[in-house]
Amino acid sequence: MNSFSFHNPTRIHFGAGQISVIGKEIADAGLSRVLLIAGSGSIKTNGVYKQVTESLQKHGITWVEGWGVQANPTVTRVRELIAVAKQENVQAVLAVGGGSVIDTGKSVAAGFFLNDVWNAFCRKEEILQALPIYTVLTISATGSEMNGNAVITNPEEQKKWAIASPVLYPTATVIDPGVQCSLPFQQTVNGALDATAHILEYYFVDTNPLVTLRIDESILRTIIEMTDLLKANPCDLVARGNLAWSATLALNGISSIGLKGGDWACHQIEHALSALYPKISHGEGLGVIFPAWIEFMSEREPAKFHRWSREVWQEDNPSRALRRFRDKIEAWGSAGRLRDLGIRKADLSKIVDIIMVMPIVGSISRFTASDIESLLMLAY
Amino acid sequence: MNSFSFHNPTRIHFGAGQISVIGKEIADAGLSRVLLIAGSGSIKTNGVYKQVTESLQKHGITWVEGWGVQANPTVTRVRELIAVAKQENVQAVLAVGGGSVIDTGKSVAAGFFLNDVWNAFCRKEEILQALPIYTVLTISATGSEMNGNAVITNPEEQKKWAIASPVLYPTATVIDPGVQCSLPFQQTVNGALDATAHILEYYFVDTNPLVTLRIDESILRTIIEMTDLLKANPCDLVARGNLAWSATLALNGISSIGLKGGDWACHQIEHALSALYPKISHGEGLGVIFPAWIEFMSEREPAKFHRWSREVWQEDNPSRALRRFRDKIEAWGSAGRLRDLGIRKADLSKIVDIIMVMPIVGSISRFTASDIESLLMLAY
Repeated sequence: MNSFSFHNPTRIHFGAGQISVIGKEIADAGLSRVLLIAGSGSIKTNGVYKQVTESLQKHGITWVEGWGVQANPTVTRVRELIAVAKQENVQAVLAVGGGSVIDTGKSVAAGFFLNDVWNAFCRKEEILQALPIYTVLTISATGSEMNGNAVITNPEEQKKWAIASPVLYPTATVIDPGVQCSLPFQQTVNGALDATAHILEYYFVDTNPLVTLRIDESILRTIIEMTDLLKANPCDLVARGNLAWSATLALNGISSIGLKGGDWACHQIEHALSALYPKISHGEGLGVIFPAWIEFMSEREPAKFHRWSREVWQEDNPSRALRRFRDKIEAWGSAGRLRDLGIRKADLSKIVDIIMVMPIVGSISRFTASDIESLLMLAY
Repeated sequence: MNSFSFHNPTRIHFGAGQISVIGKEIADAGLSRVLLIAGSGSIKTNGVYKQVTESLQKHGITWVEGWGVQANPTVTRVRELIAVAKQENVQAVLAVGGGSVIDTGKSVAAGFFLNDVWNAFCRKEEILQALPIYTVLTISATGSEMNGNAVITNPEEQKKWAIASPVLYPTATVIDPGVQCSLPFQQTVNGALDATAHILEYYFVDTNPLVTLRIDESILRTIIEMTDLLKANPCDLVARGNLAWSATLALNGISSIGLKGGDWACHQIEHALSALYPKISHGEGLGVIFPAWIEFMSEREPAKFHRWSREVWQEDNPSRALRRFRDKIEAWGSAGRLRDLGIRKADLSKIVDIIMVMPIVGSISRFTASDIESLLMLAY
């Protein structure tokens, strides 16, 4: 069992009606003015915006609003919002939305103190402080609501890169799973696939500690079953609650305790896909890449996939488990192949080039350009 | 799924060699003088004391030592150590030992600011602040290293009572599972049974969230298997690591997410046993009480025990699972019955009286005095 350090100071308020505590959380910290960051307006139709702003008003907190964050959020929008934050003298960031909104919020919070926020993504400036971050989650997927990571796209440079810092853990997060009832099923699936991929990035790197692997299997099985239930009934609150907490656990540190830091090749590959094709949802992209990675790696290290087959899919044979995994993804209406995502075959070599800018790809197996090309062909 | 709030700010350093970070942790917080609390001296023979004090010296931290904390630690010793803490102007508490030492440390940290520490246990004074708490764990059992609880015995009043507060979470905890290799097997078993009981107190209260129940089953199964491995080889470091982290998870909030607050009747009953018989180990007492509670409750609510039977013991029949549970406890050399603990039958009514001082006993079923008497007879 590997040594580890663990520290996750984010306070979680989870359940129906919990959004009303956000104003008190912020006021209790002595803060009175925030930048409220949001997406394209769904929080106005599902009632979240009203609950949030009523809570802010009740606790005497003023705010300025920054709308329009989109999937695969851009550094351009982050820079604009940093300017707003400075001009409006906000004391904290309140991100109300999914992972894209929260990652934008974290980047604004860090960039507030940097010469240019993209420098942090290129490791040219270090993140030493950040504005306090609060989040109200409206789609369970990235786990960003309870970790110190953020992923942002620089469209000019075709880079979708990440930052991570202890100062980027949200101070407090509200998760009311009920607000996710109005999501299109495809977004629920994207979240489920993203959370699944977070677990799998860690799960295959080591055979110990057993307790972490079992916890990971518990989360993986729950994600699959709850997504099935939500396909039948998007307002199954028990399934929403289980899926939401599973997605948070998938990347809050608990799922990776004692494991060797994760593999992350699939995330690196998917980040390159969506850097080139920004319309691709991160979760859907991972749903194509991860099965192809398992297929590719099964030839190199077949023994690695027996435990997953048995404990997650109750299959003795990993190739049957992989078949079940792919069938499930397709049954959920998600893309099975790169071509289904609208990627042109001629672009595969460009994707390889984007990935190979990274100094290291993968940890279980260090991928060469030719490995990635083979994997992309399998996925095509 | 029930609403919940979760916040666990304790920083964990886990693994071989991690004890050396404790001085830096304390120094980084701007502290330079601590009260080092310990038990009866085992940390001098297993090398922990040397590692701790070298780390303190290296980082310029001075300390005063308070030894002699015993199992079922007393409020008398807590009061003495509070006096030392005040006299010596310490800025923090450093508890080096197991749950008894840590709980004493937490009580000293809180009592430092109270008129009398026992008032907090009687709810006559509120805990609003505490000295910063640091811990180096030497036996995995109570989970106190990563939660805000402490249990202390008042021998004169025959009360073994608890406090809980957000200010009692350790700032940082070091867990080096390797130092537990020198423990007598019986102490490893006591820890395993205590951690098992922590899970079970929560596990039976609800049928949802499924992800939490599965995580609990993951921890329960790992505890059983690792204890078996440690019986064969007390220095199996993989087993030590898995058991140590499982015991921490059992009571750090993760195992109870979304469940209805736990039952706690078994803990209340065991606390009464050891209030009257202070030589009884908490874990061994729970190993007698919990199977009896399951036997007693199986008649009232048989359906409640099917999931546990199937998922933890792979048995369709709960009475067979209970038989397996009891056989395992006896195979580990732990007491199977109250009489094996040296409890006189004539004292059972006294134990009932001690328990019934509590306003409420149990949550799944509110126990009357006659219920408890029946349960104790089953356990006898």
